[in-house]
Amino acid sequence: MHNKKNLNKSLIKAVITLIFTLTSLHIHAFNGGGSHDLTMATHDFANAGGNSQPITNMDDLMGRQPNPNVNVNGIGIYVYDGMFSLDALGPYQVFKTAGLKTFLIAKKKGNITMSNGLTIAVDKSISEVTQLDVLLIPGGAGGTAMQTIDTEILDWIQKIDQTSIYTTSVCTGAWILGAAGLLEGKDASTHWYRANEMLTKFGADYTGKRWTRDGKYWTSAGVTAGLDMSLALVNHLFGKEYTQAVMLDMEYDPQPPIKGGSVKKSVPIIAQLMRDMYDFFLINFVNCPLGTPGACLFN
Amino acid sequence: MHNKKNLNKSLIKAVITLIFTLTSLHIHAFNGGGSHDLTMATHDFANAGGNSQPITNMDDLMGRQPNPNVNVNGIGIYVYDGMFSLDALGPYQVFKTAGLKTFLIAKKKGNITMSNGLTIAVDKSISEVTQLDVLLIPGGAGGTAMQTIDTEILDWIQKIDQTSIYTTSVCTGAWILGAAGLLEGKDASTHWYRANEMLTKFGADYTGKRWTRDGKYWTSAGVTAGLDMSLALVNHLFGKEYTQAVMLDMEYDPQPPIKGGSVKKSVPIIAQLMRDMYDFFLINFVNCPLGTPGACLFN
Repeated sequence: MHNKKNLNKSLIKAVITLIFTLTSLHIHAFNGGGSHDLTMATHDFANAGGNSQPITNMDDLMGRQPNPNVNVNGIGIYVYDGMFSLDALGPYQVFKTAGLKTFLIAKKKGNITMSNGLTIAVDKSISEVTQLDVLLIPGGAGGTAMQTIDTEILDWIQKIDQTSIYTTSVCTGAWILGAAGLLEGKDASTHWYRANEMLTKFGADYTGKRWTRDGKYWTSAGVTAGLDMSLALVNHLFGKEYTQAVMLDMEYDPQPPIKGGSVKKSVPIIAQLMRDMYDFFLINFVNCPLGTPGACLFN
Repeated sequence: MHNKKNLNKSLIKAVITLIFTLTSLHIHAFNGGGSHDLTMATHDFANAGGNSQPITNMDDLMGRQPNPNVNVNGIGIYVYDGMFSLDALGPYQVFKTAGLKTFLIAKKKGNITMSNGLTIAVDKSISEVTQLDVLLIPGGAGGTAMQTIDTEILDWIQKIDQTSIYTTSVCTGAWILGAAGLLEGKDASTHWYRANEMLTKFGADYTGKRWTRDGKYWTSAGVTAGLDMSLALVNHLFGKEYTQAVMLDMEYDPQPPIKGGSVKKSVPIIAQLMRDMYDFFLINFVNCPLGTPGACLFN
C-alpha cells in the first residue's frame, strides 16, 4: 500500500484482479501497513495511547502500530455454546477492522452455537493457547452460568490472565471473570440484570458505566456495550485519529430509533418484566453462595 | 411462561433444570408467548406499527405479535463470502431477540467466510427459499461487487422481492438491490463510500440518513447502521414498549468513546484517506457503467 501514487495504472489493475479473488479484501486492505509485524510487547501502561502523532498520509494510516503491542500473542475471544452472539462478534469486527490479530478460542475445536442459533467456526482450542495479550470473555444467560462452574475453563482463564496485557469481559462475561477470582476488589461493569447482586458476590463494585477500566481489567455493560469498549481499547492503543478511521469504516455514529437501552431510559414496567423473565431462569443461580453454583443450577 | 406465579417452586426448578440443558435459553425464553404461530400475513402497511396497547404484564410482553406478521415466511438474511460480518449479524441478533423467525440464506448450503475471516454456518440455500416476508441484503467491499454481477443471485432477489412485505439492505448491500433494479426512483441509504455515485447509477437518491424507508424498501448506512434500521423495523412491527424490551436486553444505549462514525464527524484527512483506500480497490467498479461491471472488475 506504500507509495501508491507511484504505481502505474496497469499494476493497480493487476493488484485489483488479484485482490478480488480473495474473500478477505477488507482485512487485507487494513493490514497493508504491516501492523502484524512481530515486535516485543512493551507492557508499558504509562505509554499506552501514545500514538499522538497526527495521521497525515496513507503510510501514517496503514503503518500505525498499537501501543502497547497486542499483536505478539494477539487478542483471544473465548466462545462457548449458549453465549450471546454480538457480545463476541461486535468486538471481533472492531478489532479486525483495526488490523489486530484476533481469533476465537473454545474449549474444543470445531463449531459452537450461540444462544440465538448462530453457529460459528472456532479458530483454536484452549489447549493450543497458553498466552494472550488480550483476553475477552463474552456473556450470555444459562450458557454463561455453566461456564462459571467449569473449573477447566476457570483455570485456563487464570493462567492466561497471569501474563495478559488486558483481561476483559462483555456483558455477563464478568460473571466468568468473577468466578475465576479476577474481579476481587475491582470496579466493574456487567449486564444490568441483577448486576449489583452478582458483582458483590465476586467482591467487585458495579459502576453502572458503559464500560469500566480498573488497571488492566476492562469490563463492559450488556451485549452492544462490547462495541463501545472495544473501540475504547482501540483508542487507547492507537489514538483518536486511527480510531476515527475504524469508526468511519463501520459508520459507527449510532442513532437508536427510540429512547431505551438502559433501565433508566426504559418504561419501568418493561425493565421490571425483563428482570422477572430472567429471574424465572436465573434467580436460583443469582442467589447461590459463591463456590457452590453447581448445586443451585442442578438441584 | 403464562401464569408463572401459579407454578410451585419444584416445578420451576424442574423447568430450570430442563432449560439449562438447552444451548438456546435466550431465544426460547423470548418465544414463550408463541410469536411463531402461523397466521396469514396481512400486508397491511397502513396498520403497521399498530401494537399501540401498552404492555402491562408478562403475558402482554411474551404474547406480542408483529404487525404485519413477518413470521409466516420469516426474515431471510442473504449471506456470501467476503461480506462484512456485522452487516448481517447485528440485525440477526436484533430480530432473534425480538422472537422473529430469522435465518441465513446463501447461494449454496454449508459455510460462508466473512471479509474478516469469521466463518458461519448457513441455514438454507437460495434454491430452498421461494418466499420471504423480509429480505435483508448485507454489504461488503470486493465480495459485494462480485454479487452485483451474479445473475443467478439478482434473479433470486427479484423473485423474492415480488412477494416480500419488506425488502431491505445494510451498507453496500444497496449496491446489490440497485443492480437488481429495485432502487430505481427510490430514496436510499448506503455506506458513505462513493454513495452518491453508486446510488445515482441505480437511479436512486442518496439521502445520507442513518436509514431510509421508501415504501417497502428499507436501506441503511454502513455496517453498524444495520442495528438501528433493524430496531426501527422491530419498532414498526411491535411498537415502542416491546422495542424497549429488545433494546434493554441488548443494553443498546450506545456511547462511542470518541466523536466519529460519519464523514461529517471525522477529521477531514481521515475521511479522505479512507476514501483513497477504498478507491484503490474499488474505483474502477464505481466508475463502471451499469450493466457492464464484470468488465471493470476483471479487465
